[in-house]
Amino acid sequence: MDYIRNPQLIETESFTIIQEIIDQEFPNYVFSCPNEEKIVKRVIHTSADFDYLKNLVFTNDVILRLEEFFAAGQGTIFTDTTMALSGINKGILDQLGIQYECYIADPEVAEQAKRKGMTRSMAGIERAAKIAGPKLFVIGNAPTAIFKLLEMVGKGDLDAAAVIGVPVGFVGAAESKEALFEGDVPAIVARGRKGGSNVAAAIINAMLYQLVERES
Amino acid sequence: MDYIRNPQLIETESFTIIQEIIDQEFPNYVFSCPNEEKIVKRVIHTSADFDYLKNLVFTNDVILRLEEFFAAGQGTIFTDTTMALSGINKGILDQLGIQYECYIADPEVAEQAKRKGMTRSMAGIERAAKIAGPKLFVIGNAPTAIFKLLEMVGKGDLDAAAVIGVPVGFVGAAESKEALFEGDVPAIVARGRKGGSNVAAAIINAMLYQLVERES
Repeated sequence: MDYIRNPQLIETESFTIIQEIIDQEFPNYVFSCPNEEKIVKRVIHTSADFDYLKNLVFTNDVILRLEEFFAAGQGTIFTDTTMALSGINKGILDQLGIQYECYIADPEVAEQAKRKGMTRSMAGIERAAKIAGPKLFVIGNAPTAIFKLLEMVGKGDLDAAAVIGVPVGFVGAAESKEALFEGDVPAIVARGRKGGSNVAAAIINAMLYQLVERES
Repeated sequence: MDYIRNPQLIETESFTIIQEIIDQEFPNYVFSCPNEEKIVKRVIHTSADFDYLKNLVFTNDVILRLEEFFAAGQGTIFTDTTMALSGINKGILDQLGIQYECYIADPEVAEQAKRKGMTRSMAGIERAAKIAGPKLFVIGNAPTAIFKLLEMVGKGDLDAAAVIGVPVGFVGAAESKEALFEGDVPAIVARGRKGGSNVAAAIINAMLYQLVERES
């Protein structure tokens, strides 16, 4: 069997094919700006799903807020799942001086969740709110995390630099994302049911690859 | 904002909605067996993508081979990405006595890949072949891992109990999966471009949740 074995070639060729498919199947589609184009294409690269051309939306100057967040080099990314954190390029985050946390398996957060009758994802948001410095929330799984986050922001108990709000699912996911989409927090939102930890990680990686020289 | 906060309720409700959507939008769809039904539905649960109703195929008595693999309690799962491994319920694997490995970040594997001019995923398959006991391969990202695996099986250099072959992508992914689909190795295959680490993890979790009492 003959097949391409060079990861960089595979990736370059993949993005060429993605553009060809857009040209053929969505000829009237126009990206708003190169940053958004890179994010949407990387999400398609990670899902092979062109629904994200229309599902993925950007609110409240989120790209600028993300650029500021990463440039400041002193913030923390909070993910709702270990899977999302696992997919993010942590070598680049280390280079940029950005911290990263996922509290889903934290025993203290689990204890708080049990005591308060909330999901661990919600307790994770409460825990994150206590951490100093700029905060970027990356939510690929838990609608309850987004609802909780919006509640706390609304009450002035939490300041979020931006939110990647892309939980996948059938119960609460779309509703949580519409609430985020309509709110004042800068956000990248996958409207509807689709999304996931892989999509969340791809969005962050697409931003990171624009900021630093890509690792081979 | 009012929303469901009980994770078990959310999951039960999600699967009810998935069945309702199948009834409405795919009224003639019939699952081959309850095991396959649980796997396909969990993949839809993790992706919100009903394409998997037709994309996901099962070859060479793969369900029986997976049941044997998990029952034997002495095998190893090899994933091609840390993200896939991250998404798998390792508490249940520990209960069952199943080992799990991902070599993608292993320095020795990286060195071998460089020396031999192959991807780290391919070198990871070579490394896995040296491990004793039954082997289950879970590939959500790297077509080259599947090509390499099929080459080694063809030469008698590797024995795979089963393969979850669901790499996503535009270069080699569909081709690698067709080769797996047409081969003799028991496999669950996502035909076409779609798949991913999340899909790979969901398939394993769907099997695990059928074997043991679900952890809350």
